[in-house]
Order: sequence, then C-alpha cells, then structure tokens
Amino acid sequence: MTTTAAVPRSPEADARLLADFVALSAIGATPAGGVERQAATPEDAEMRAWLTAWLTERGFTVAGDRVGNLFGLYEFTPGAPYVLAGSHLDSQPRGGRFDGAYGVLAAAHAADRLVTHHREAGTTPPFNLAVVDWFNEEGSRFTPSMMGSAVFTGAMPLEKALATTDTAGITAADALARIGALGSSDVFGGARTVGSYAEIHIEQGRELDKSGTTLGLVDATWAANKYEIAVLGSQGHTGATAMADRRDALYGAALAVVAVRELAERFGEELHTSCGQLTVYPNSPVVVAREVHMHLDLRSPSDALLAEADDLLRRRFAEIELKAAVEIERRFAHTWKGHLYQEAGVALARAVAADLGVSSMLVKTRAGHDSTNMKDIVPTVMLFIPSVEGISHAEAEFTADEDLCTGVDVLTETLARMLDGALAE
Amino acid sequence: MTTTAAVPRSPEADARLLADFVALSAIGATPAGGVERQAATPEDAEMRAWLTAWLTERGFTVAGDRVGNLFGLYEFTPGAPYVLAGSHLDSQPRGGRFDGAYGVLAAAHAADRLVTHHREAGTTPPFNLAVVDWFNEEGSRFTPSMMGSAVFTGAMPLEKALATTDTAGITAADALARIGALGSSDVFGGARTVGSYAEIHIEQGRELDKSGTTLGLVDATWAANKYEIAVLGSQGHTGATAMADRRDALYGAALAVVAVRELAERFGEELHTSCGQLTVYPNSPVVVAREVHMHLDLRSPSDALLAEADDLLRRRFAEIELKAAVEIERRFAHTWKGHLYQEAGVALARAVAADLGVSSMLVKTRAGHDSTNMKDIVPTVMLFIPSVEGISHAEAEFTADEDLCTGVDVLTETLARMLDGALAE
Repeated sequence: MTTTAAVPRSPEADARLLADFVALSAIGATPAGGVERQAATPEDAEMRAWLTAWLTERGFTVAGDRVGNLFGLYEFTPGAPYVLAGSHLDSQPRGGRFDGAYGVLAAAHAADRLVTHHREAGTTPPFNLAVVDWFNEEGSRFTPSMMGSAVFTGAMPLEKALATTDTAGITAADALARIGALGSSDVFGGARTVGSYAEIHIEQGRELDKSGTTLGLVDATWAANKYEIAVLGSQGHTGATAMADRRDALYGAALAVVAVRELAERFGEELHTSCGQLTVYPNSPVVVAREVHMHLDLRSPSDALLAEADDLLRRRFAEIELKAAVEIERRFAHTWKGHLYQEAGVALARAVAADLGVSSMLVKTRAGHDSTNMKDIVPTVMLFIPSVEGISHAEAEFTADEDLCTGVDVLTETLARMLDGALAE
Repeated sequence: MTTTAAVPRSPEADARLLADFVALSAIGATPAGGVERQAATPEDAEMRAWLTAWLTERGFTVAGDRVGNLFGLYEFTPGAPYVLAGSHLDSQPRGGRFDGAYGVLAAAHAADRLVTHHREAGTTPPFNLAVVDWFNEEGSRFTPSMMGSAVFTGAMPLEKALATTDTAGITAADALARIGALGSSDVFGGARTVGSYAEIHIEQGRELDKSGTTLGLVDATWAANKYEIAVLGSQGHTGATAMADRRDALYGAALAVVAVRELAERFGEELHTSCGQLTVYPNSPVVVAREVHMHLDLRSPSDALLAEADDLLRRRFAEIELKAAVEIERRFAHTWKGHLYQEAGVALARAVAADLGVSSMLVKTRAGHDSTNMKDIVPTVMLFIPSVEGISHAEAEFTADEDLCTGVDVLTETLARMLDGALAE
C-alpha cells in the first residue's frame, strides 16, 4: 500500500473504531441484528448522548441547532471557515446498523485523528473542523427525509420542519424538546461559516460489491419525486354493499400501487418506483375503506425520464379514478432534481484513494443523503464503501470491518487535505 | 290497518321508542351523524350501562355471561324456556347509529310492552322472556365478528374468544374486565334454556328500499369465507434497491386486492369480495415493505360458487407469489356456509306482518348476524326494516322513524306469539 497520509492508519486506530461501532450498534439493537432508533426517539437520544460524550472528552465543543442538528466543533484558527463532516444517527424502523451511524462515527474518528495529529505536531491548519449528526435524515418518523440538512442549507423553512407531525400527531418540535435536543440558536452563526463538507456512507446499491471495488466516488445523485397521495372513497359494509355501489378506496390504492410498479417495468433500470407507506381508514375487516393515504417514491438518473413518468402516472390515476369510482388527491410532493457533485470534490477523493492505494470507481447515488443538500451550498465530497448485496433499510445490512476501517482512513486523509485548503474557494 | 295485535301500537309507545333511540345515538356520536363505539370500549360500556339501567327500572334481572353477552331476564313461569330477542350495541369505527343498537332497543321495548301487558291483564305466558346485547358482533376490534353469539351457541370456544387481541395487543378478556363486563358464569345455566330467538335489524342492502317494502322476512344467509392473509417479502430501500432485487410485500398485497376484486367482476352479483383491512410493516415512506397483513372477505348465496372462488383465488395467489417474489400465507379462515332459517320462523313473521297490515317480502342476508349463529341451535325469526340506499357500516346509514316504529310493532307481536308457544318444539 502506497501511503502519503498525513495521519497514517494504525491497528490501534482500527481497533478503537470497530469497538466504538459495536458500542453504537447496541443502542436500539433488534433481535435480528439491526437497529431501531427513529428520529428523536429515546434510542436516537441515546445515540446523541453517546456522541456528545465522545466528542466532549476529545476536546470538541458540542452544540445543537434549532432543528436538532448536533455539531462537535474544534477551532484551530478563530474566525476561519469550518470543514464539516458527518452523516446521521437516526435509523429506519428495523433498519441496518451501518446506514448513517457509520458515517457519523467515521467523521468523529477522522476528526479526532486530525486534532491529535495537529496538537502533537504543533501545527495550525488554516481552517476549523466540525462533526455533524443531521436530524431526521431517514424521514420515516417525520416526512420529508434529510430534514436537518434541508433546514441548515435553507432548502426548507425551520418553522415548517418543526411543525411536521409523526403518525401519533407529535410535532418534530415537541419530539426534539422531549429528548432535550431543541437548540435555541444556530451553531454556525455570524462569521462562523462552513466552507466545505464531506460524508461517507454505505453504498445502498451493489455496484461496489459486484465489482469488488472498495471506494465509491459519488459524482451525481438520482433525481426523485415523492408524493403523498390520498385516495377517497365511501365507507360501506363488505358483505352487504353491492359491488356496483362500491367506492372502495383500498381497491383504488391497490390499482395505484400496481400502476406505480408497472411504470418501473416500462422504463427498465432507469426508473425506481415504490410505495412504502399505505394507511387504510377505518381499516376494519368488514368495512369497505373510505380513505387511503400513501407515499409514492419515483427515482431516476434522468430528470427528463422522471418528468415523463410523472405525466404517465397522472394519466393512469385518472383512469383509476373512473375504474374504482374514487378520487385521487396529490396532497404533497417533495422533489429533487438529479445533480452533479462538484468535480473538485470528486477529483480530491480520487487522488486520496490513489495515494492510499485504495481501489475506487465513480458511482451515482440513488438514495438521497445529507450531502445532496450540502453540495448545493458548499464544495462537497461524498464517499461510499461497499454494502454486501446492496442491502439497506433492512436488518441484514452488512459491511466488512476492513471496509469500515479503510473508509475512515480515506475520510481522514480527505479531511486533512480540506483542512489545508483543498476545496477552499 | 288490520290489527289483531296482543299489544296494539300507540303514539305514546312510538314516541318513547324514538326518544330512547335519540338518547342511545348520542353515545359515541361522531360529527358526521354516525357513532363510534367498538366492542368493550368506554362508549360500548356506556351503551351497556344505559341498557342495564333501562331494563332494571322495568323489572328485568340484568346479568352478563363469561364472554360479555348482556342479558335482561323476565321470568313469568319458573323453569320454563326463554324466548330471547336482541342484537348488538357495538358499532364499526365511524359506523351508523342503526346497525345493531336499533335491534337491541327494539327488543327491549317489545319485551317491556309484553311484560306490562301480561301484568295488567293478569296473564302468565308459558315461556319466559329475555333481551340480549351480544358482545362484539362487528368484529372490527376483535376478529372474528359475531363472537358473543358464537360462544353462546358453542360455535367458538370461550377461551379462544377471550384470548383474541385487538391491534394494541389487548385481549378481549382484558378489554371486558376493564369495563367491568366480564361475567363469571353463564346466565342460562342448568334448566334455564333458551327455546327460541328473534332479531330485528336494518337491511344492509337495498331490496326493501328499492321495492318500497316495509318488512324483510329473512329466509337464508349468504355464505362467507373470511381470510387472514400475510404477504411476506424483504425490507429494502425504496430508492436504492434495484427493481429486480425487490421482494415488495405491498406490491404483492396490492396485486391480491386487485385479484380479489376481479373475482367479483367474474361472477357478477352472486359474489361479493372485499379487502377492508390491510396493514403494512414497517410502513415507512422510504422502505420497501417486508410484510403486509390483510383480511379478505368473500360472500355468496351459493356455497358451490364460493368454493369455486376460493379455488381460483388460491391459483391467483400462486401467480402473484411468482410475479412479486413474495410468499402468501393464509393464517386464519373463518367460514360460514349459506343456510336457511327455519320455515316455521319465516311463516310466523309473514303471518304477523299480514295480520298487522305491514308489507313484507323474503330477503336473504349478505351480512352475518347473531341470528346466523342462533338459528343453528333454536327456532329463529330474523326481520329486516329498510335502510335508505342500503348504506351500512357508514355514518350516512339512515332508516325512517316510521319504519323503526313499525319494526318494533312487528317484533312485539312476533314475541307475543312466541311467548304463547309459537315455534315451541
């Protein structure tokens, strides 16, 4: 292995990382090897407390902002911009232990190695360094996903995010307040600005795993259209109501779920479509449903293809309205266009991988990440490590220890160069 | 109007009935004119308390049995069999105010009129008289429906009924205990037996409404097959998981809902099919569902047609398993065959209607009723009054005051004749 690393990898650093990852994975652990720690739950609070203690012990100043993003700051040069790195500690219901948590832990370990390095070397980099846990990246408890980074980057108003409710009617503001995570100010106010961002994550796809490549250099995101749909029918008796009289909201919703899948079949691998959430009212075995709420999710590397799919879906819904005698309302849509990550960030990561002797390839991300928001305001590096069989949002998610350690090493060197001015505008 | 009624109708009796029905309809009332008082909820308890007070004031002895059936007994001739009449006080979520509650109130008013009549006339009929509110007829909170009468008639073991859980995991036994409705013994133990049964209910169909007929003489039930189905897939990321890798339980379930509807289209009006309850796990907007639980409901006047539909459904499910890469498990099925009500009961009701000058016609019931269970053990009369447009299990359910009063009058005369020995074996 070639190495020109500022802070070379060591067996001790690897061991500390893996031990910390085991400790984190015990929080909200499920019997099948996954974790359940949705945003602002007691399990999420436990993750945040763990991170806060870890960073504080190592000399970082920890503070949360008004939407529950948690930062650990280390100031080298007062007033200079921050190099920020992180991901998210929340998980899906019965999610995997790597998704998000690995990225936050990797950022914390990388930052700690760099702080230690500069302290021991007596050097002062021209930029400051911070670690972040973004609030509610998963979007399973509060919709939409990537909420904390969206508010941070100005893509979503703070008030709108805080007013979002979960299925029990609890607002994000209340949920954050209950776990003591509702900060009263913005951490990076005034002259304290973020100058660049880096994030590392498991792939959530199988390109790296299939090709035996260790590092993914993310150069583009897939575009996404997300819809909240309501299907409106009439409540009736399942036995007694004549079929001709039915306005069955669940039948209409089922036709919509099938139509959404057929869209993907029509466009091949260039379109991913899903309905992951569907709720029936009143949901009684002997009552024809009066209303169904559902979330649809369409993603593509092509904005044009996504627009075409959107148009086809509207037409198909009009047919379903007639066939099932229901009304279909689109109540909310959350959209992001396909975008490129800055070339400078990709080039930096490619150079680091080459210098460290780590195999790498360009990949696109189908999933949204907090870096999807961050790249819109600052130069950003997004790195992937392999996930076996591309499994994610599931308890069987798995990444090998060696890949976890290599990922942190690449991130450490990338941040080292960013601290020295790489990606500075 | 011809009348040979033992206890003739009076404007005062009609007014008392309608006033009581208004009082009952206020319990668990919903803004849209319906009611919500599912089995063993506080609203159901309030209904039971109202009935208990009403019957007690009028000289009935009120007692509950071990599955929460509530009886009001009036003994004329010690040791003689009872003529029993009633229905159920529980409702669907956002159900109508007539379904069930009317039948219990009608039985109570009819019984009170008969008790008063015999007391004032100084006569002693050879049989005793009782009113019943059957537990959990609706089956929306605890599955299956018609639970109380099923246990009473021996169609379902007591222990199985009490161990049934609602979606919050509360057993029927606990729910009954919480509202103080879990009796410790059977009310009709030993020599106290029920000799015959009568029930009146809104039609839950539109035959009477369409034809302008006041009274339905129920001569047969539709057969029903009810299934609890689990669709098993694999959890994954909605954006990242390749379409070819998906084992989407909700897609499989949607195909099943559509297949169930297509069955009805194939067989025309001789088959009613529904899926009213469908629950998705984990039900997150960005997670491909790992499991879906659903209740299917197939009904037909023909046992043979239902068997054919069941066979087609099995084959269709096998195709869906391949198409969606899921497994479909049938976890529970509740079946009742189409059956005739006893001819003697139909003849008695027809004679009463004719003698009172009330228009009547034979109808089949598509919905299950507690009389569906009772007719299997004793001679039974099942009466319907019209429901406007056949609406039921919905807040818009409506029956005219005149029909409510006429129904009680017919039930009173029917019970009068049963008390005097009609239908005695």
